[in-house]
Order: sequence, then structure tokens, then C-alpha cells
Amino acid sequence: MTTNELRIDGKRLWQSLMELARIGATPKGGVKRLTLTDLDRQGRDLVVGWGKQAGLTVTIDKIGNVFMRRAGANNSLPPIVSGSHIDTQPTGGKFDGNYGVLAALEVVRTLNDHNIQTEAPLEMAFWTNEEGSRFVPVMMGSGVFCGAFSLETAYAAKDVDGKTVAEELARIGYMGDEEPGRHPIGAYFELHIEQGPVLEDADKVIGVVPAVMGLSWYDCIVTGMEAHAGPTPMGLRKDAMQVSTRIMQEVVNIANRYPPYGRGTVGFVQVFPNSRNVIPGEVKFSIDLRNVNEELLTTMHQEMLAFIEKTRVETRLGISIERVSYYPPCPFHPDCVDAVRRATAKLGYSNMDVVSGAGHDAIYAARVAPAGMIFVPCKDGISHNEIEDAKPEHIEAGGNVLLHAMLERARIVAA
Amino acid sequence: MTTNELRIDGKRLWQSLMELARIGATPKGGVKRLTLTDLDRQGRDLVVGWGKQAGLTVTIDKIGNVFMRRAGANNSLPPIVSGSHIDTQPTGGKFDGNYGVLAALEVVRTLNDHNIQTEAPLEMAFWTNEEGSRFVPVMMGSGVFCGAFSLETAYAAKDVDGKTVAEELARIGYMGDEEPGRHPIGAYFELHIEQGPVLEDADKVIGVVPAVMGLSWYDCIVTGMEAHAGPTPMGLRKDAMQVSTRIMQEVVNIANRYPPYGRGTVGFVQVFPNSRNVIPGEVKFSIDLRNVNEELLTTMHQEMLAFIEKTRVETRLGISIERVSYYPPCPFHPDCVDAVRRATAKLGYSNMDVVSGAGHDAIYAARVAPAGMIFVPCKDGISHNEIEDAKPEHIEAGGNVLLHAMLERARIVAA
Repeated sequence: MTTNELRIDGKRLWQSLMELARIGATPKGGVKRLTLTDLDRQGRDLVVGWGKQAGLTVTIDKIGNVFMRRAGANNSLPPIVSGSHIDTQPTGGKFDGNYGVLAALEVVRTLNDHNIQTEAPLEMAFWTNEEGSRFVPVMMGSGVFCGAFSLETAYAAKDVDGKTVAEELARIGYMGDEEPGRHPIGAYFELHIEQGPVLEDADKVIGVVPAVMGLSWYDCIVTGMEAHAGPTPMGLRKDAMQVSTRIMQEVVNIANRYPPYGRGTVGFVQVFPNSRNVIPGEVKFSIDLRNVNEELLTTMHQEMLAFIEKTRVETRLGISIERVSYYPPCPFHPDCVDAVRRATAKLGYSNMDVVSGAGHDAIYAARVAPAGMIFVPCKDGISHNEIEDAKPEHIEAGGNVLLHAMLERARIVAA
Repeated sequence: MTTNELRIDGKRLWQSLMELARIGATPKGGVKRLTLTDLDRQGRDLVVGWGKQAGLTVTIDKIGNVFMRRAGANNSLPPIVSGSHIDTQPTGGKFDGNYGVLAALEVVRTLNDHNIQTEAPLEMAFWTNEEGSRFVPVMMGSGVFCGAFSLETAYAAKDVDGKTVAEELARIGYMGDEEPGRHPIGAYFELHIEQGPVLEDADKVIGVVPAVMGLSWYDCIVTGMEAHAGPTPMGLRKDAMQVSTRIMQEVVNIANRYPPYGRGTVGFVQVFPNSRNVIPGEVKFSIDLRNVNEELLTTMHQEMLAFIEKTRVETRLGISIERVSYYPPCPFHPDCVDAVRRATAKLGYSNMDVVSGAGHDAIYAARVAPAGMIFVPCKDGISHNEIEDAKPEHIEAGGNVLLHAMLERARIVAA
């Protein structure tokens, strides 16, 4: 068998995914395994156990990120790392995160099966608290790792019961010794379900991910005058909901003006007093703008502020807008993107470029090492949901692309 | 003094209003005196006590409506009745309802002061549970009185704690003996703050009320597909919020097409899952359409259904619309409207016709007797609010119009 013919064991990968999914399994077929809970510990223990069985050596850092290493021929080289996360949303699925971690394990198992030695060492990794459902900030482990925020900030984060990350990390036995970030990475790959409908819609197997979109989040508050819906003539109203609907429509119009990667969403709306026969006096809503191009994202931002200013002048209602979050677009490293592209071509899978609209640990990893991502389709584009699903053949294909992309970077010494 | 020079005592009326407002007074200057509570009993006792001091005889019916009678020269004639309600919203004001009741009392006190005898007897009345905040249906006492729904239905209504109207009526001692509706009414007048901004905006003192608008209430549910705000391209979305905003804007457009009495309001909005980075999968909202002309209200109803059908076809999202309430417009009796108009003219107050956009007990009274209403301005058009306010000179003017309108219908025997 030539190296080009090397393939992962898709069935073994699928079985590992299903076994991990039993920890925290929900009646609807999803998984609830919130970060740093007893279930998270069980999941971590299972994956670490599998890593040890595969002969990997385990390092845990102070924020609980776990790295499991397969030695190379030249261990002075920084490792080629692949991973993701195994914590889930409260009503999460079997694939988000878990797939990336277990596919990296499957790469190692496959190399073991064939006695393949790489020049650079390989590592599989899982990062603590990617989801951010129990503790914020999200992407906590990778964020601390790359210095986006401090270990102290992460440790102090509390869940709704007042328990801290530091307490819970220590309690489940995953507060390691290594300083976060003091861990070299030669290149980082993350394999993930797409969490969107693009691959499925285009009937492609592999998404080559050139970049992750930037995003701008806003809170907008429109203040009118609460009044009785009957006695108040249309011309004398200060209807906060009506003015809000104009802005909400413009959010979508702006996104449509910057295809194909413009995104505009109003996901959260709160109306006061929210009573059938009262003209709303105040409406608070979120705005989510995204684009992969930072200039276009800035243009979208400016157009929205200009529209709001125009609306304020025209309606004479109070409109406040505050940016509450901003992530610039994150282009992945050409070496890693091309490695994924070449592996896909070599394997003959149908493919297309898919810009990631969601955040991933790979964004933070990209701050400290060359990084890239691989997507496979998920059913109906649905994720963060118990009905999240993916096809075994796609799961297998993604694993093969990961295998060959990692091998390109790590280089085979002897087969 | 001629009869035409007869005036109520505005200061006494104001003082009575302020005294009644102390029962259930809120720190912000409003009143919380929910129907059939201990506070309602205290309020009822105070007003009934004042009626007795004024020599009135008290009748209470089985739903707790209270009628207090000043005998006329010919007591076989049906009484000329005026009243309103003394229950309030949870964060209500001093004037809504209470003003109409105490102004009727002030008419009686004024006639007593001047030893004026009317041919027909006069009655002041207050109706049980106009507000509907604690028990539904709203306008309960007048509704049972006119046969809009049964006494049994009203008795069975429960508050959030499971207490029934029947229990609470008996507990506070206001379950009377008279069969509701077995109480003749020669004519009914109701004096009320406008609860809207029209009089204040036009700088008029008295509103002659020719009619109450009809209203149509709907629940609309738009069903799209919940999806992640980042990875889902604009063209593949089924954004329930965006489709909802189109309908919400059309609600206002429809009302604006039928001035001056068209009204369109979206007061209640609920978004699922209501999360910043999730495209809404479902939006539920209320629609409130009103007009004083029944044909126009029907046209508005049809235009809205047509727009929703068009939107359903264009967007291919699920849209359900259900009418949950309908009251036809209620024109008041020309004799009563003209009596108010003549009294206003005689007294020389600036005035205009104001169609009532809100419901009042007078709507139900109009089903069993000639009825009419009188409005005075309220500050900024605000009602159902602790900051509800009115000017003493307007309160006095309204009382004088009520006095002379009632006297026209009851006819003076001897001054």
C-alpha cells in the first residue's frame, strides 16, 4: 500500500463518536455534557483513556486543555496538532466538537495500525469550554492559550450557581501544571461539521475553510411612548416597535448588499410593556453583522449607523446603539488551507470553499500557529441542537482529509 | 340663579377624587385597587357611604354592580343613570373610572345643594371589574348586566391564585340580591378621561363622544427555521423575524390608509429561541385593528388577510393568523350625544368630537339603553399608568357637562 492509499477506519471513528455520545445522552438523541461537570469528566476520562491505549503521552495545562502526543522521528520539531472540544451545548448534538477530537484520535490509530512514523510529532488536543454555555467567555481554553484573556479571568468565571471555573477544574481533576500557551504548535488543523447548510445545498462532501468571518454584535434600544392602542391616533404615536421594524429590515438589506459573505441577523427582541393593546414604549433588540472581509464589515457597520441616524432624525424617537462584541475576520494560514485543499483533491472528494460563519477554537489557535479547518456537511445545516446529524460517509471522508493534511505537514519517515 | 347658571363644586369633586385615591395609593402617585380585593371593598364602602350621606338609596345586583338612587318627582320613570368603575389597573391612576363615578356623585350633591327636584329619578352607578386585570372578561359587571355573557361565566372566573369572582364578591360583602339587568335605565351617561392625546393636542376642553371604535384582535405566528446566524447564508434562511417585520409594518400601513379612525398596533411580540446568534425559528405577535366604521374595519381585516396570504406565497414560510376577539363599533344614541353637545355649547367650553378608541362600560350599557359619553383631556394622553393626570379645571368642566346633560334628560321639576 502506498501512502496515498492510506485511509482511516470510518467505522471505528463512528463507533467512538457514538460511545462518547452516550455520556450525557438526551432522550431526543442529543448530548448534554456541559463543561467541567461530572459528565465532562467522564467524557474527558474516556478520551484520555483511548489516547493512552493508542500510546499517547498526556499533557494538561492550567486551564484544562489536554494535549496527547504521538512521538515523531524528530521530537525537537513542534507537533502537528489537531483537535476541537468535547463540551456540548445544553441541548447539543453528538458531532459538534467531538468529531474533531475523535477524528484526530482516529488519525493516530490509523498511523499506529500501519506503523507509520512521522518526522514531526503529532498531537490530538481538546480545549476546555468552547461552548460558553456554562461559563463565559466562550472558547475559553483556546482563548487563554493564545493570550486573548488571562488565566485569572477564566478562573474567576462563575456559573449560575456561583461555582467558579477554578473550583470546577480542580474538582474534576483537570487543572494541569503546564502554563497555557507554553506548548509549541507547528500547525493546527480542526475538523468540524459545517453547522450551516452550504455544503449540503451544493451537494459537496468537503468544505475547505479559507477563513472565519468577523462579527460585530450590537444592542439597539428604541424608545418611544407607551400609549393605549385604541385612543391614540396614528399620527400622534411614538411606536417603538414600528421604528424597530425599519431597522430590523435594514439589517437584512445591508447583509444582502454585500454577498456572498454578508450576514445580518436580529435574533433577540424584547418589547415593553409587551401587551396586546398598548403601543410599545420601548424595544430592545440585538443586531449581528458578519463578513469575511474586514473592510466590508466596517462598511456594513457604517451603513447601519447611518441608517439609524437617519431613522432617528425622521422619527424623532430615541434610538441608542451600542457595539457589545467584535471579532475581526480570521483568515487561515495558506500553508494549512492548501494542505487541506491538496488532501481533498488527492482523495477525490467533491469540495468547495466554505467560509466559517461560526467561531471555533481554531480562531485562537491561528493567533499562535499556522491553522486551518475542514468542514463536512451536517443534516439540514442544523447544529447546537439534539437533532444534529451527519452521514457516516461524510464523517469518514473528513477524517481522511485530516489524515492526509496532517501527514503533509508532519511528513512521513517510514511506512 | 337660573338653571342654566347651575354649576358643580369642582373643588369638592377634586377632593373626593383625591380621598378615594388614597385607598390603594402607590408610591409613584398612582392607585392599585384591583377588583374585589379588600382595597376595592374599602373604596366601595367609602363611595357608598358618600352616597348614603347624600340621601341616596342603594341597590346592589348579583354581580356587585352598585346603583344609588335620588328619587324624582315621577318614580315610575326609568332613572337617568351615570357612572363608571372604581377598580383600577395594577399600576393605575387616580382618574380612570373613579372620575366618572365621583362626578355622578357630585351632580347629586349639587342638586341637593340647590334643592332641585328632577322629574325622572337619577342614579349614580359603579360597575364591577371594568379593568379585567384580575379577572377576565373585562367590563364584567356591565357585560353581565346587558347579557353579553352569563352570571355563571362571570362567577366562575378565577384570578392567578385560583380565587373565583363568586367567592371574592361574597367575601367583600358585595354580592347583592338583584338580578343583573332587571334594573331599568332611561338613559346612561359616562364621563371619563380621554385616555388618548387628541383633546390635549387640539387644546379642547370637552370631547363629545359619538361612538366607540370596533376592534379586531389577532394572534399571528410566523414559522421559519431556527439556524445559526453565522454559517447560514442570507439566501438559505427562513428568518421568521424578518417576515414578521413585513406584516408588522403592513398593520400600520393598513391603519394609515383609513384615516382618521383607522388604528393598527403590534403590542406583543415573542421570539423563539430569542438568542442573539440564532435566526428566529418562530415569532408570535398580536395585531390590533380598530375603526369606528364597521365596513372599513372589515376592509382592514380583509386587506390584512390578503397581505398575509401574499407574504406566505412569496416567502414560503408558515404563517398562521387567528382572530381572538371582535367588538363591532358602538355608535352612541343620538339623543344622548346631542344632550352632551348641547350642554357643552350652553356652558361655552371648547370642544370637538372624539371617537373612543378604548372600551368602556358605556358600550354594554348602550345595548340596553340610550347611552353617551363625555371626555376630558388627560396629561399627555396617558392612562393605565401611575402618572395618569388631569387638570382640575377640566375635571370641573366635565362635571358641569354631565350635570346639564343629565338634567336635560331627567327634566327639572322645581328649582
